[in-house]
Amino acid sequence: MNVDGQFSNSIHGPKHPQSVGYTRAQKVVFYQSGPPLKLAAGGKLAPIEVEYETYGNLNQARDNAVLICHALTGDAHVAGWDENPEGPLRDYRRNKPGWWDEMVGPDKPIDTHRFFVICANVLGSCYGTTGPMCFNPTTGRPYGLTFPMVTVADWAALKIKLLDYLGLQILYAAIGGSMGGQEALEIALGWPERVQRLIILSAGSRLGAQGLAFNAVARHSIINDPNFKDGNYYDGPRPLAGLAAARMLGHITYLSEESMGHKFGRRLQSKDVPDFTPIGVEFEVESYLKHQAENFVARYDANSYLYITRAVDYYDASVWGEMDLARAASRITARLLVVSFSSDWLFPPESCRELVSAMCRAGRTVTYVDIPSPYGHDAFLVETTTISRLIHSFLSI
Amino acid sequence: MNVDGQFSNSIHGPKHPQSVGYTRAQKVVFYQSGPPLKLAAGGKLAPIEVEYETYGNLNQARDNAVLICHALTGDAHVAGWDENPEGPLRDYRRNKPGWWDEMVGPDKPIDTHRFFVICANVLGSCYGTTGPMCFNPTTGRPYGLTFPMVTVADWAALKIKLLDYLGLQILYAAIGGSMGGQEALEIALGWPERVQRLIILSAGSRLGAQGLAFNAVARHSIINDPNFKDGNYYDGPRPLAGLAAARMLGHITYLSEESMGHKFGRRLQSKDVPDFTPIGVEFEVESYLKHQAENFVARYDANSYLYITRAVDYYDASVWGEMDLARAASRITARLLVVSFSSDWLFPPESCRELVSAMCRAGRTVTYVDIPSPYGHDAFLVETTTISRLIHSFLSI
Repeated sequence: MNVDGQFSNSIHGPKHPQSVGYTRAQKVVFYQSGPPLKLAAGGKLAPIEVEYETYGNLNQARDNAVLICHALTGDAHVAGWDENPEGPLRDYRRNKPGWWDEMVGPDKPIDTHRFFVICANVLGSCYGTTGPMCFNPTTGRPYGLTFPMVTVADWAALKIKLLDYLGLQILYAAIGGSMGGQEALEIALGWPERVQRLIILSAGSRLGAQGLAFNAVARHSIINDPNFKDGNYYDGPRPLAGLAAARMLGHITYLSEESMGHKFGRRLQSKDVPDFTPIGVEFEVESYLKHQAENFVARYDANSYLYITRAVDYYDASVWGEMDLARAASRITARLLVVSFSSDWLFPPESCRELVSAMCRAGRTVTYVDIPSPYGHDAFLVETTTISRLIHSFLSI
Repeated sequence: MNVDGQFSNSIHGPKHPQSVGYTRAQKVVFYQSGPPLKLAAGGKLAPIEVEYETYGNLNQARDNAVLICHALTGDAHVAGWDENPEGPLRDYRRNKPGWWDEMVGPDKPIDTHRFFVICANVLGSCYGTTGPMCFNPTTGRPYGLTFPMVTVADWAALKIKLLDYLGLQILYAAIGGSMGGQEALEIALGWPERVQRLIILSAGSRLGAQGLAFNAVARHSIINDPNFKDGNYYDGPRPLAGLAAARMLGHITYLSEESMGHKFGRRLQSKDVPDFTPIGVEFEVESYLKHQAENFVARYDANSYLYITRAVDYYDASVWGEMDLARAASRITARLLVVSFSSDWLFPPESCRELVSAMCRAGRTVTYVDIPSPYGHDAFLVETTTISRLIHSFLSI
């Protein structure tokens, strides 16, 4: 199958006892010939390589496809074990299953006996789809900051391109959490006739001022790392300290005061008495953040962090209704499920309810659930028991 | 008056119509001879210069003194206009009154017709009291990271030293917000016989895991600034980008989602359409944080930021009761007023109530008020109308 692109680097077939029908780590190249992709922010880009994975089998009616959209630092590898990982994610992928493996698989809530599940990495990422660390064919050098600005609208357009390529006119469901929820929403707004069900977790129609502020600090840290060098760092040391600061900060916003209190409290890190130093690691929570950041910078690209957080900043679903969210929501024909979590302070319940309210005002029937949870924004990845029931039920109607 | 120290750099007398009895920007040097100050974390320090200001007049009974303790980046200049500022704070102080001028002055809630008000800069600061940017007399060079670790307990001890020096056995009240509330609490715990009234605003007995985490990211940013050079940056470029990141982050935690939403929303900065760039300033909230940070780095020392945030990290009032807060609180004999603000998420109402509850369990009568406010942690500096009534009433009983 090669309509507009070509396969490369394919790893086929089941590699793990549970991985029935998994075809993973596939790549397709679009816009190799003909006009480039016109980006919503005004730029153009070609060619574009997209990394995606699929799980389960497409039925004969081609109407059992479920698209999952990943979050900020996620990738196409949703489920199963990748036993032969390649590239910069090698070590990261080798020792853990896909990022939503609890939800996707045979007899799991998003049941691969029943559904053909697709997840593709977003444009601008460093995880397989074309992004700023890729070579610009015109210059033969990595794009860096010459990479054009990409937006959630472009991600959605490229997903539609992929669905066309896979011969999928209809999505049984589009599902996403956080930024992925916004991308799924954008697809349902832009191509309402192609989405039958829309599930949005931990996301609102747009980020609030506080979220914009945190992203601004994260980018400030990256840009002011002396190794950043205006984004041209690929042949030298990378801006790891700045990216680490961004990740530590992000990590705090994904948790909640309550969950951090439970998990770490004020416990010291492997000592009974502090060292009384202004610069060392004293508390467990410091050690945890440092460790998380070290793991992260080994597998993520700072330029991608800049582009993707900025895309999240820009996103505002209400542009589909001339800044009237209800008018925008009236475009959607999909059945709707929105889930918020009580302690999420990046997309707090009020933010999700704003979207739900707009959908209701637009005359749409919405299933909305606010789940009491101490796990903050990350709850959509943690509260799997509760979400499993919700998603399983919603996909059954 | 010179008991153990000496005046230097005094600016006397009323400089402003309202500044009756103000004597500002005074310095006293302690531990010039004799044993140095033994610090709670184990170090020693001498000599120690303390900058303090007073407002109003001490009465004959010497029982009308009110001590105000400042917050993280505050200084001794609480009230009035300093028309002849010197040193690094020159530009900062010239164009604005003291940081709590709305609360302190003639006929104001902390009435300088009635009270003799004192505020002194904390140890480790860069605002007049000895800190890491001061010259170490042994080496003739700035202390930098050779400055010993200071704690809230040391701040309290040094305040007592200053009170002794001023001939004040009794404080009519000790008052502080945020970190200043913790310092006031520490004084009432360590020297209960000297504090008749204790007013704590926006502070708990200790910082939670989330607060520790934010401070860790702030310090990470400073320490990883290439100009930091292990704290020895005083004869070269300073770690401004790292300190700016710390301040931007801190600033977010002082506000609330609601107040940021009201103040900035998602408005673009002086443009109708974004520039679509991953590195520039697009939103008003970004511009605001950048501007605030630029002002801040011009007037604050990065090493002081490290030491003072760490001191806040370490502080836990329950050490006075062998980690039992009620047992600690039983030491206090002062009348108690604790004020929290509904949207404060650095010291949230639950954190303040933990302290109040411990005081109650210790058999103390506490006046506790949780003020509904959208202004977050900064509310203690913003909600002056409400606080004025509370403090005025509390100081009248």
